[in-house]
This record gives sequence, structure tokens and C-alpha cells, in this order.
Amino acid sequence: MKPLKIAVTPGEPAGIGPDLVLAVAQKEWQAQLVVFADGEMLRQRAKRLGLPITLVPYTVDSDTLLPAGQLYLVDIKTKVPVVCGKLDSENGHYVVETLRQACKKNMDAEFDAVVTGPVHKGSINQAGISFSGHTEFFANESNTNDVVMMLATEGLRVVLATTHIPLAYVSKAITFERLHKVIHIVNTDLMLKFGIKKPHIFVCGLNPHAGEDGHLGTEEITTINPALEALRAEGLNITGPLPADTIFNPKYLEQADAILAMYHDQGLPVLKYKGFGASINITLGLPFIRTSVDHGTALDLAGTGEADTGSFILAIEKAVSIAAEKQ
Amino acid sequence: MKPLKIAVTPGEPAGIGPDLVLAVAQKEWQAQLVVFADGEMLRQRAKRLGLPITLVPYTVDSDTLLPAGQLYLVDIKTKVPVVCGKLDSENGHYVVETLRQACKKNMDAEFDAVVTGPVHKGSINQAGISFSGHTEFFANESNTNDVVMMLATEGLRVVLATTHIPLAYVSKAITFERLHKVIHIVNTDLMLKFGIKKPHIFVCGLNPHAGEDGHLGTEEITTINPALEALRAEGLNITGPLPADTIFNPKYLEQADAILAMYHDQGLPVLKYKGFGASINITLGLPFIRTSVDHGTALDLAGTGEADTGSFILAIEKAVSIAAEKQ
Repeated sequence: MKPLKIAVTPGEPAGIGPDLVLAVAQKEWQAQLVVFADGEMLRQRAKRLGLPITLVPYTVDSDTLLPAGQLYLVDIKTKVPVVCGKLDSENGHYVVETLRQACKKNMDAEFDAVVTGPVHKGSINQAGISFSGHTEFFANESNTNDVVMMLATEGLRVVLATTHIPLAYVSKAITFERLHKVIHIVNTDLMLKFGIKKPHIFVCGLNPHAGEDGHLGTEEITTINPALEALRAEGLNITGPLPADTIFNPKYLEQADAILAMYHDQGLPVLKYKGFGASINITLGLPFIRTSVDHGTALDLAGTGEADTGSFILAIEKAVSIAAEKQ
Repeated sequence: MKPLKIAVTPGEPAGIGPDLVLAVAQKEWQAQLVVFADGEMLRQRAKRLGLPITLVPYTVDSDTLLPAGQLYLVDIKTKVPVVCGKLDSENGHYVVETLRQACKKNMDAEFDAVVTGPVHKGSINQAGISFSGHTEFFANESNTNDVVMMLATEGLRVVLATTHIPLAYVSKAITFERLHKVIHIVNTDLMLKFGIKKPHIFVCGLNPHAGEDGHLGTEEITTINPALEALRAEGLNITGPLPADTIFNPKYLEQADAILAMYHDQGLPVLKYKGFGASINITLGLPFIRTSVDHGTALDLAGTGEADTGSFILAIEKAVSIAAEKQ
């Protein structure tokens, strides 16, 4: 059996992404990690961090595992030299190109997964590229209409019905169709990517106390309950809607394979509190496996050696284990 | 120095409130606990639970501490007999009357605090009384325009800018005036009731990522930042607005005397997850001290002896300690 091939994109070159890649290259992996980045930039960063690194040009036939201190490289040149901690939108196209090439090789099934480091959305947009996030970018590039953002840590997976939209728009964005699609994607990917035979999905209400029988909002009655009923009629195992302030009770967490929050700040505060420094982002619904760190570029830590590698290591490990499951 | 007098209202008689009161009466307290309830109902519940109880009629001159197994009583009759676990709106007026008398005696400074057990809002409303919660009831009865709901557990206090309103109304309810008032109440009560000399208040944004410079919503720019700036100019120590999914990071929690969430499900999931079974509700801004359990009536556990007394004990302890601080 050939070793798994994992595409790794460091993301914003002025941030901690390159540091994380160089740090994880110091150990031996039971998969081929192939970094999509500027080799010269990586060598300079390694020198600054005092880490040994040998970059081995990747070819489609590369099929041996490398020892610690070595990484396969798909070399993609930055436009201007990189300064640690200083954003330069001149390199926005470079960042997107690393993602595009990694995506293509996953679409072609040459690779088994992609693991992404943090990008800086503002800097990419300043380069004249409309970019609202990795998740949306990969969905677009792979012609996938609907994807779902999952954040996961030990003992808890949170999926989101809506993601990066203003709070005032959330109520309108929660429709029967959206919930129906999102929950099907979650259910399918929990089976396919997580090996769970009959996923049990817990669903939050939209309003405080899940609307308290309509006293605190009606979307549970008009939209959420009908969607959950329809899904139950199709055989899915769904509990809810439950109030978001009690759904994270240990007795529910024991049973839940995933908790669906209606919006970003309803689900992620507990996830990040519980999984501090040890949670990852997984995109569900894509035709390939994609995991990511759960944090930003941390520009102030770039090149200092103080970046926390916890989430990045977990993201690689999870990508490898999901890919192994599918093999 | 006379002992502190703490009014205790068990709340809904068919729920676990009476069980909690009887359980805490089994230990000796360094304060006079005076229960406002139907004495006969309490005796019957005690018998069912197998707990010894002697109810001592309370008078304004009562000033001795009672031993374990005894409680002072202000006797208020239920309208119809109470059946464990069965709501009967005929007793809605009774529940409200216990609150009213406890409130009055606190307003008159005959008492030092009130601690409330869980009520059932639906049952009270069914009795023809418009009742949206203890907090609002006590505010009304005491002619207080603005109160703030705080939930607290070891190491974390969360206060809410808005409470029990539909999510779709939250954005409109977040105004400069509201934030200005709420944060002043929080700041003042952290000083007066918690003995914190110079409170440091951390504030969440309204939108995901605190709006990300306007890309994910503009209320941070139009409303929240101006309000926080005005408060800082008045000398208050405020940090924020910060994204709600990172504000509960341990490095912030160490510094924060309270975290202000913009709405219910942004702040309470982490509080209840962290403080599971050991958090309490404190109303800020009232002219008297009021603490409460953080949970509901748990009708199915009434009379079984299985109700968890953790939150109720903490609520009494906190009321006593705040009252002692003010003495």
C-alpha cells in the first residue's frame, strides 16, 4: 500500500504558518507531507528558527516516506520577499496559488487530503482577490454548492448552520432547506469520514431557551422543528432543538456525535473553551478531505519559535486518520 | 451584630424548589434563613423525602440562629394542594405572592437578601399574571428601571446586555444607551457587591469575529466601540469588543472581573459548561441583594430526593457573603 499523500499549505507567509510547517517536519510521519510554498522562504524561516530542513522536490511518483527534518515541496514563488510579521498584499496571489494547486491535486485524487495553515483574508482581498475563507474557496474550486464548517476537539464536534455572516442576518438564513441540506451533509460525512455508523446529531434552537414554546421567538416552531421532523422521517437520528446553554451538558455530549449550532457565536465559544489550543477545523461536504488549524496568522509570533503547534499537529493527524479510514 | 436575614423563596411548589429548601435546612447556617412558602406543603414534602423539619414562625424580632433541621417560616397558603411534578396554575398567585412578600421585606431593609428557587413562567402566566421572570418582577416591584442579569461560577462572571428576547431582535436592542447603562450597573455592583475596587470588564462583539473590521457586521463600529470609548473616557476599565469565541481564553479570564455578552446564547453556554451544576444567577442594579439557582423546576425530580442542591447552596452562600460585605 502506497503511503498517504497530504498536501500542506502554510497560508500567509508573514505569519506563523511556515513556522508550524517547519516544526512538524522535525518529526517523522507515517504519511507523505508535501508542502505547497516558496522553498526559499521556508529555508530562510528555518534558519531563523534554528531548525534543520531539507526540501525534496515533489513529483507525482514520490512514494517514499521521508525522515525527520525533510519535507516534500511543491515550489511556488512569492512575488516579493517575505518579512516576518509584515503583511504584504503583493503576496496575496501567491497564497491563493498554493491553495489552488493543493486543491487541484486533491480533486485529481493524486493527494489524499489537504491541511491548511492560517491565511489573512484582508491581505488577500487587498490584492484584488475576492476571498472570504478557505472553506468557501475550496467549495468554489471544486464546484461544491454546500459545505459545512465543523470544529472538533477531544469529545466534542460542533457544526454550524451559518458561519461568517452578521448576527442580524442569522434568523433569515435559517431556512428549512438550509437545515435539511446541512444536516444531511453532517450525517453523511460523520459516516464516511468519521466511520460512525448511525450518527446522533444534537441541534440547538435559534432563540434563547430554544424559543420557550414560542415565547422567545418562533423560528423553532416555524422552521427548525419541521426540518428536524422531515429528517427524522428519513431515518436520521436527531435530538433537539435544545437550548444552547444546556446542550453542552455532559449527559448530552456523551451521546452526541455532533452538535449543530445555528450560528458562529452560539457554538464556537464552548468548543474553543473546552478545546483550548487543541481544536481543528474540518470542512464537510467537499469531494476531498480538508482539515485546518482553528486559529489565525499570529503575525507577532512569526519567526519567534513561540507559535503553538498543537492545533496544526492535530489537523495533520486528523487528515491522516480520515484518509486512512477511506483507504 | 445581629445575624443576617435571608429570605428564601422555593418557587414553583410542584418542582424541586421545596426539596432544595428542605435539604439546605439540614445544615446549620450562620444566617437566618426565612422561607416564604406554605408550611403545610413543606411538611408534607419533608415527610415524603424523609427529612426532619421544624418550621418556626418568623416575626420581625426573630434574631437567633436556628439549629440544623429548623427553618423560620413566613407562611403563605397555596390555593390548591400541591402534587409533586404536576403543575397547577391555580397556585400561580401563591408563587407570585411569596416573591412579593420577600421583595417587600427586602425593600424595607428588614431583610438582607433574597434567594430564589426556580419558578415556572408558563404556569404563572396561565394563572393570568403577566410574568417574564424573577429579574423583571423584582425590578418592577422595586421601581428599578434597569437591572442586569449576571451568571457566575468559580473563575467566571458573565453579564448580559440583552436577555430573554428573540435572536432576531438582538441587533436592534444593542444601543449606545443600553450598553452605557448596563456597563455602569455592572461596574458599580462589582464594586459595591463584590468588593472589587477597579473592575476590569471584558466586552464581546455582537458579530462573529467581533465584526472583523466591518466585514461581518457593523454594530461594533457604529455602536459598541463608541459606547466603550465613552465609558473609558469616564474612567472605566474596559477591554473589547473581542470575538466571543476567543474571549473565554484563560489569559483573558485571569484578568476579567466580568465578561459582558451581547446576548443570552453568546455568553451562557460557556458559563454553564464551565460551571456545570455550580453556577448561580445574581441580579445587578436592584436596591437589594438577589441571588438564584441557575436551573429550572425539574418537575420530574420533585419529591424524589435526587435534586442537585449545588446551585441553591451556592446561591445562599453568595447572598450571605455579599450581605456580610455590605454590613
